[in-house]
Amino acid sequence: MAFGRSTTTHGTTLLANTILTLDMKRRQFITAMGLGALALATPFSLSSAERLTDKWLSQPSSGKMRLSFTPYELQLRHAFNLAKSSRTTTPDVLVRIEYEGFTGYGEASMPPYLGESIDSVCRFLSKVDLSQFSDPFRLEDILAYIDSIDKDNRAAKASIDIALHDLLGKIMGQPWYKIWGLNPERTPLTSFTIGIDTEEVVRQKVEEAHPYKVLKVKMGLDNDRATIETIRSMTDRPICVDVNQGWDSKEHALEMIHWLKEHGCLFVEQPMPKEMIDETAWLRERSPLPIIADEAFQRLPDITRFKGVYDGINIKLMKSTGMHEAYKMITLARALDMKVMIGCMTETSCAVTAAAQLSPLVDWADLDGNLLISNDCFDGLKIVEGKVTLPDAPGIGVTPL
Amino acid sequence: MAFGRSTTTHGTTLLANTILTLDMKRRQFITAMGLGALALATPFSLSSAERLTDKWLSQPSSGKMRLSFTPYELQLRHAFNLAKSSRTTTPDVLVRIEYEGFTGYGEASMPPYLGESIDSVCRFLSKVDLSQFSDPFRLEDILAYIDSIDKDNRAAKASIDIALHDLLGKIMGQPWYKIWGLNPERTPLTSFTIGIDTEEVVRQKVEEAHPYKVLKVKMGLDNDRATIETIRSMTDRPICVDVNQGWDSKEHALEMIHWLKEHGCLFVEQPMPKEMIDETAWLRERSPLPIIADEAFQRLPDITRFKGVYDGINIKLMKSTGMHEAYKMITLARALDMKVMIGCMTETSCAVTAAAQLSPLVDWADLDGNLLISNDCFDGLKIVEGKVTLPDAPGIGVTPL
Repeated sequence: MAFGRSTTTHGTTLLANTILTLDMKRRQFITAMGLGALALATPFSLSSAERLTDKWLSQPSSGKMRLSFTPYELQLRHAFNLAKSSRTTTPDVLVRIEYEGFTGYGEASMPPYLGESIDSVCRFLSKVDLSQFSDPFRLEDILAYIDSIDKDNRAAKASIDIALHDLLGKIMGQPWYKIWGLNPERTPLTSFTIGIDTEEVVRQKVEEAHPYKVLKVKMGLDNDRATIETIRSMTDRPICVDVNQGWDSKEHALEMIHWLKEHGCLFVEQPMPKEMIDETAWLRERSPLPIIADEAFQRLPDITRFKGVYDGINIKLMKSTGMHEAYKMITLARALDMKVMIGCMTETSCAVTAAAQLSPLVDWADLDGNLLISNDCFDGLKIVEGKVTLPDAPGIGVTPL
Repeated sequence: MAFGRSTTTHGTTLLANTILTLDMKRRQFITAMGLGALALATPFSLSSAERLTDKWLSQPSSGKMRLSFTPYELQLRHAFNLAKSSRTTTPDVLVRIEYEGFTGYGEASMPPYLGESIDSVCRFLSKVDLSQFSDPFRLEDILAYIDSIDKDNRAAKASIDIALHDLLGKIMGQPWYKIWGLNPERTPLTSFTIGIDTEEVVRQKVEEAHPYKVLKVKMGLDNDRATIETIRSMTDRPICVDVNQGWDSKEHALEMIHWLKEHGCLFVEQPMPKEMIDETAWLRERSPLPIIADEAFQRLPDITRFKGVYDGINIKLMKSTGMHEAYKMITLARALDMKVMIGCMTETSCAVTAAAQLSPLVDWADLDGNLLISNDCFDGLKIVEGKVTLPDAPGIGVTPL
């Protein structure tokens, strides 16, 4: 409890000058500030954000939930090359919910292929009216309402879910892994991601990955075998392979998977395009390694149709709309005898640590998103000897830097 | 938090003179007290329980979990007639876990057809060694250990699970419906049970059921139609039908269900013997009312095979081994598009209120077990205008009387 309150006090220093605050009287606010066109062509500028903050920090919070948010562009340490794209930044929005002296933090990370942007997230968040809920513990009702505001917008929805979990955990004085009854010693090793790149960059990244016991390799271009061979010339650590839908021949995929097994790989994530369901089922039946779904699904109802197609799922909060649905997805996947992996986007320690709260329940973790950026603004999970190590702090366990 | 502590303080008065305490040093204790033969032929007498309590209440709790239990025979208000048995009492064991000034209560209720007894539960509980766990928040580990002690013994396992939930909720200062994010206003109506009996007793019970908006009728004998006709001559309130495996002809079952639908029934629970899977699937395909499983299943892994056989499930804590697994079962059933009902045994307000914490998630509740006994020793949920009404108190929300 004490920690929750002190986080709140210090926390306000982080975003105080850059945050957009939407209070209970949201509609009047939007009208008054001429924000009817929150459909901005460009992200909010810092100065306009400052003006809004000055305005709204003076509002009495009236003992209810107060939602604030700010755009935050993530700077990538390395250009990020996937089978189908490359980039050096990731758009991101930080979210804050204040309630009776407690502050919960959340985050929406928007890698472009998910179809969300700073604009779309800010537009979504500006529609959120929490004044109808007097109690943040009405989590199921609040999340059902958030889900009903608009379809998709999963990252925007996740940012609210994460901030609410942070808030509720702080009110209860416990981190979520404890609230869920989990043993923090059961967290898995996390993999460190090596993108698709030149041999030189791959070598550099393998050096950088030194503290990690598992490597994750992005595949799906012509140099797939070369990448693995480069890594194997340097280390025999186990490798997780993420193809990001990059193979469109099932025979080629099967041949590659046999070769990958011989080279110490653990599983293959999304080997084929998500639409190729029959081909993936064909592949799974013959594959010597587990086939894990990633792009093929987003949310809870998607999982029941995976029987016989995938061996497991890679859950990410920005797909699942947050922690509450992710927890249910793990329960369902386990009941269906599926493997579970928890992953993330490039994002700050805020969303990565939120995901890590679930990690004692999963087989594999890929929680290195915060390590791939140079401007992390939260302190949270640590990776100790390659293993996810959860902070003891209540809520999602992060402290703004 | 304050409430949790005050409950603890008052709570110790209830069972202080009748409780068996098993401390951390359980093995030494059992040896010292000559309890190697806890396989008692008859239930513990009050006087021996008193002697043990005197002995063990003086033990320092050393900041860890301290488990106590006491047999408690439930007195039924009416003899309870089912398709296959009749009785006037139900054996029961009350459980207590103390930890750092907090006390969690739990209960095992043992209707004879479940195969547990006061002896078997006390024997099971005497094997429980919580000294290996320094933190009650390791719920998944503790419950996995409890589950591993012996097979079956589901009521005994549930009693520990309930006591741990009560304890943890009190430490967090919140009732479980809040920890699960549920809206207490979404609790369902609960049904009041009318057993199989003479017309006179049925009439008397319908009078008694006056405050309830839904009736539950036990069936499976020759007078099935007569019972419904008697009730319909008095009231048009909706009726849930529980056959307790009483029909063994699928054609007769289908004919009855059509007749029941015409007489304002909502669903039919366990119409046929649990072994008659194909026949039940045949019936479900043709039935105008939902077919709900009860005796056909106990725990989480049983549910996935119900697709096409049952439309829904009746979860009871004494079958599911408690609240933690019951919550997961609801998640799974919902993902499989099944109806969910929460029921209970004849038991005190302790276990009934624990089950009620889950009730905002279900379609129908049958939580009248505490109303069927004359010696309830807890205050907890209330039925207000037929609706389950949850107490605001932390944990499972009960106060010892």
